[in-house]
Amino acid sequence: MRRILRGTPGKIVQRYASSISRSLRNTTPTAYKILRNAVARVEQIGSLGYKLHLNERERAANEVIMDLKTAEIQRGLLDPAKFSPGHHIFTMLTKIKESPLFNILKSMPKGGVLHAHDTALCSTEFLIELTYRKNLWICITDEGCKAIGFRFSVEEPTMKAMEGCTWEPMESFRERRGEENVRQYLMQRFSMYPFSNFRSNNQAWIHFMGIFILLDGLLLYAPVWGDYYYNALKEFHEDGVQYLELRSLLPQLYCLNGEKLKISDTVALYKSEVKRFVSENPDFIGSKLIYAPLRGVEPKIVDDYVKTCVALNKKFPDFLVGFDLVGQEELGRPLIDFVEQLLKMPEHINFYFHAGETNWFGSSIDENLFDAILMGTKRIGHGYAITKHPFAMNLCKYLDIAIEVCPVSNQVLQLGQDYRSHPAALLIAENVPIVISSDDPSFWRATPLSHDFYFAFLGIGPWSADLRFLKSLAINSIKYSAMQDKEKPAAFKKWQNKWDVWVEEVAKLNNK
Amino acid sequence: MRRILRGTPGKIVQRYASSISRSLRNTTPTAYKILRNAVARVEQIGSLGYKLHLNERERAANEVIMDLKTAEIQRGLLDPAKFSPGHHIFTMLTKIKESPLFNILKSMPKGGVLHAHDTALCSTEFLIELTYRKNLWICITDEGCKAIGFRFSVEEPTMKAMEGCTWEPMESFRERRGEENVRQYLMQRFSMYPFSNFRSNNQAWIHFMGIFILLDGLLLYAPVWGDYYYNALKEFHEDGVQYLELRSLLPQLYCLNGEKLKISDTVALYKSEVKRFVSENPDFIGSKLIYAPLRGVEPKIVDDYVKTCVALNKKFPDFLVGFDLVGQEELGRPLIDFVEQLLKMPEHINFYFHAGETNWFGSSIDENLFDAILMGTKRIGHGYAITKHPFAMNLCKYLDIAIEVCPVSNQVLQLGQDYRSHPAALLIAENVPIVISSDDPSFWRATPLSHDFYFAFLGIGPWSADLRFLKSLAINSIKYSAMQDKEKPAAFKKWQNKWDVWVEEVAKLNNK
Repeated sequence: MRRILRGTPGKIVQRYASSISRSLRNTTPTAYKILRNAVARVEQIGSLGYKLHLNERERAANEVIMDLKTAEIQRGLLDPAKFSPGHHIFTMLTKIKESPLFNILKSMPKGGVLHAHDTALCSTEFLIELTYRKNLWICITDEGCKAIGFRFSVEEPTMKAMEGCTWEPMESFRERRGEENVRQYLMQRFSMYPFSNFRSNNQAWIHFMGIFILLDGLLLYAPVWGDYYYNALKEFHEDGVQYLELRSLLPQLYCLNGEKLKISDTVALYKSEVKRFVSENPDFIGSKLIYAPLRGVEPKIVDDYVKTCVALNKKFPDFLVGFDLVGQEELGRPLIDFVEQLLKMPEHINFYFHAGETNWFGSSIDENLFDAILMGTKRIGHGYAITKHPFAMNLCKYLDIAIEVCPVSNQVLQLGQDYRSHPAALLIAENVPIVISSDDPSFWRATPLSHDFYFAFLGIGPWSADLRFLKSLAINSIKYSAMQDKEKPAAFKKWQNKWDVWVEEVAKLNNK
Repeated sequence: MRRILRGTPGKIVQRYASSISRSLRNTTPTAYKILRNAVARVEQIGSLGYKLHLNERERAANEVIMDLKTAEIQRGLLDPAKFSPGHHIFTMLTKIKESPLFNILKSMPKGGVLHAHDTALCSTEFLIELTYRKNLWICITDEGCKAIGFRFSVEEPTMKAMEGCTWEPMESFRERRGEENVRQYLMQRFSMYPFSNFRSNNQAWIHFMGIFILLDGLLLYAPVWGDYYYNALKEFHEDGVQYLELRSLLPQLYCLNGEKLKISDTVALYKSEVKRFVSENPDFIGSKLIYAPLRGVEPKIVDDYVKTCVALNKKFPDFLVGFDLVGQEELGRPLIDFVEQLLKMPEHINFYFHAGETNWFGSSIDENLFDAILMGTKRIGHGYAITKHPFAMNLCKYLDIAIEVCPVSNQVLQLGQDYRSHPAALLIAENVPIVISSDDPSFWRATPLSHDFYFAFLGIGPWSADLRFLKSLAINSIKYSAMQDKEKPAAFKKWQNKWDVWVEEVAKLNNK
């Protein structure tokens, strides 16, 4: 709005406002329509991507994309019941796979994912594959009905945290229950399906956190941890993603003999896997880490977090570059409780705080937005509540802080139902910096990024949002990444190379 | 945002923005908190009602109200499943009746209702009473299962529009089916219950329009029409409403012999009923009409609308004072199709256009907002999509155009589910003029205005919104009404008299 109120468009507003004098009824219909179209245009000029230049091939590709988008919207206008972004992703997943627009977005080089969590990256199919690994045990409760934990071990595991459940070797469990039954059971347990509607977001979060807990024993096994991350890079890469900025709790990994590794080993494992992946896929830009431990702790624990972060950053200065706190904001503590500890973080380690992932207004939860901004966050995770805080929204624009918008996550975790009501529409209209991310795609069986792009493009943005909008989102994901300025030109180049090839492929579909 | 960016707060933003230099990590925690609280305060200063002065008794009443509000919010923070504004009104209606906050809002003098439709005002109980009137016939279809029409007539009605159903005298229908069964059946048919979830807003609208159609034969009978309106005034008055600005299709009423009256008779009947009501209830301010025919028509029909409106305004210059078009915006035509006709409306007849009652963004539907504003609308009906249009939102602020926010209607007609996600939160934060209205309270078995106030106060506004917020809404409903400037002082006085009494009653509950 700032932009509109200054500069040229600002003058236009003022001129109109004074000349309208509350009615244009003495103008001709023709004159009226000229003015009206100018006013509609003024607003578009300020929106995300509007000023971006498209070359000839991009314009040809744009026509293909906009024809497909327009067809989906027009069908939706006739019958909103058939418009995918008006519904829950769980009910639309199959239908979306058939959408030609979705498939073009799938192949589009979308840049990087800047908001995703360590153990919620890979497809359910990959998780099920992991359960075939040797020495895996499963812990069963509720008279054999519910799996609550996994553990790799030669002998039967003995873990206090898992009391009250019965350990069984995975092979015998699978044999006893039938392979297909177990597969279907795990398909459900490893995701939020089929629950598209909870009584509250708290209940959705309980279910959500339960998946993380279940997966820990499976994924924190050192050999699996590396493979999981490598596979995530592979799946993201195949989905048109060239860079991944991961928030990780940095858990201590365990070995088959029960021995626990150091946290720095967890980081080292990440680093060696990404190195291996890039060497095998030279078009991949890379990956960086944001240390993101749990927020639901006493302030003194945050002192330890800060020390750990500083030490790890010293050891991995180009790789572990940022800090955040994770867990449900509403149940954890607000950032302001940790100010004393957080202000001790050295300037060169950036914050990437979750803030405002809530529907509450005027609570300590949405007011995390103020603390995130004032403590100098480089981006804001979710920021769902920020459109209720125009001042905070303005500060983001002034200070060039990007909002990490995660459309599917917000829907599954019950902040909103219809993508057309997502508050990021205003961020797009106002051109407050945003990136699109997927948060925990594993748990909603979504693609690593394409579904979020599809909903953002078709459901959240305006009908007129076109290839300039999509290209801006890809560019933003590199621009607002934690990469250093000196790293960015090479990153942009890797993206541009793939972009040009993709544009050419899409443009070829243009028969006009 | 304009206000924030100019004047004093604007300077504060700029000073902060330049001094923060992206991190305050070299400040002390104490200094940080002072700055942080100042920033949070800057935003509050710009919100609805913040600058209003409360006298001593109002401050005492405010403490009572805020204690009740805080208790409901704190319960909601612990378990959002129990927070009424997080759920559908249909599932919460009984619970809300027990809310002490709701009951205080019920007795509060709330000013006027500026957005309500002619045949959706009265309680279901009153509608059922009407079905006991003499000479009423009911038309049944689906092998006796579905009532699709009513008609007052001595002999069996003969109406082409009602072919395919069987007429039966209401007495015999009731006797044959059992009185209680019929009552329960009509309870459902006269409202949207129990359907809180439709597959799309279009499907909700089909159901919604079906109720209007069903009620026509019952309410368009001239003797009933007057009684219905009188009873509406009575129910609204009892709910703390002192003024009603009604949008009416102005149908031709019919008599027992089938004869049809003139449209001007419909207006005259309204006028005489309001006169009767005010003479019996001198604390009631009054009522005015907005002629609001259907928007789903050819442009040439709008020429007739304009002529009818001009003629009726000439006959009832102080009573029929405005024009609007009604019906589902998404299926009707956009305002721009009627520009030629609408620009012919004389300047002294004001527009009060519905616009942007939709989730679409960048369509001809939400762009109705531009046409409403540029054609000089005095208020905007719903304006649900306006927060996606910051320029239009700015124009409303500049031009002092109030948005008629109808929270319950928006939920029932499937624009949003959780009141905490209602876009009016931003209008409140930005102090864009709003009034709270109820649209069609009859169809959701809500009180004439209290439920909408309750959801706006507890669900849409920030936690900090207090009696100043409520008082501002009441004042706005008179300020932005179609009353002439010379009428307003007397109207304010009638409201103020009741306000002072109510404040005193609430203040007495304060034991501090």
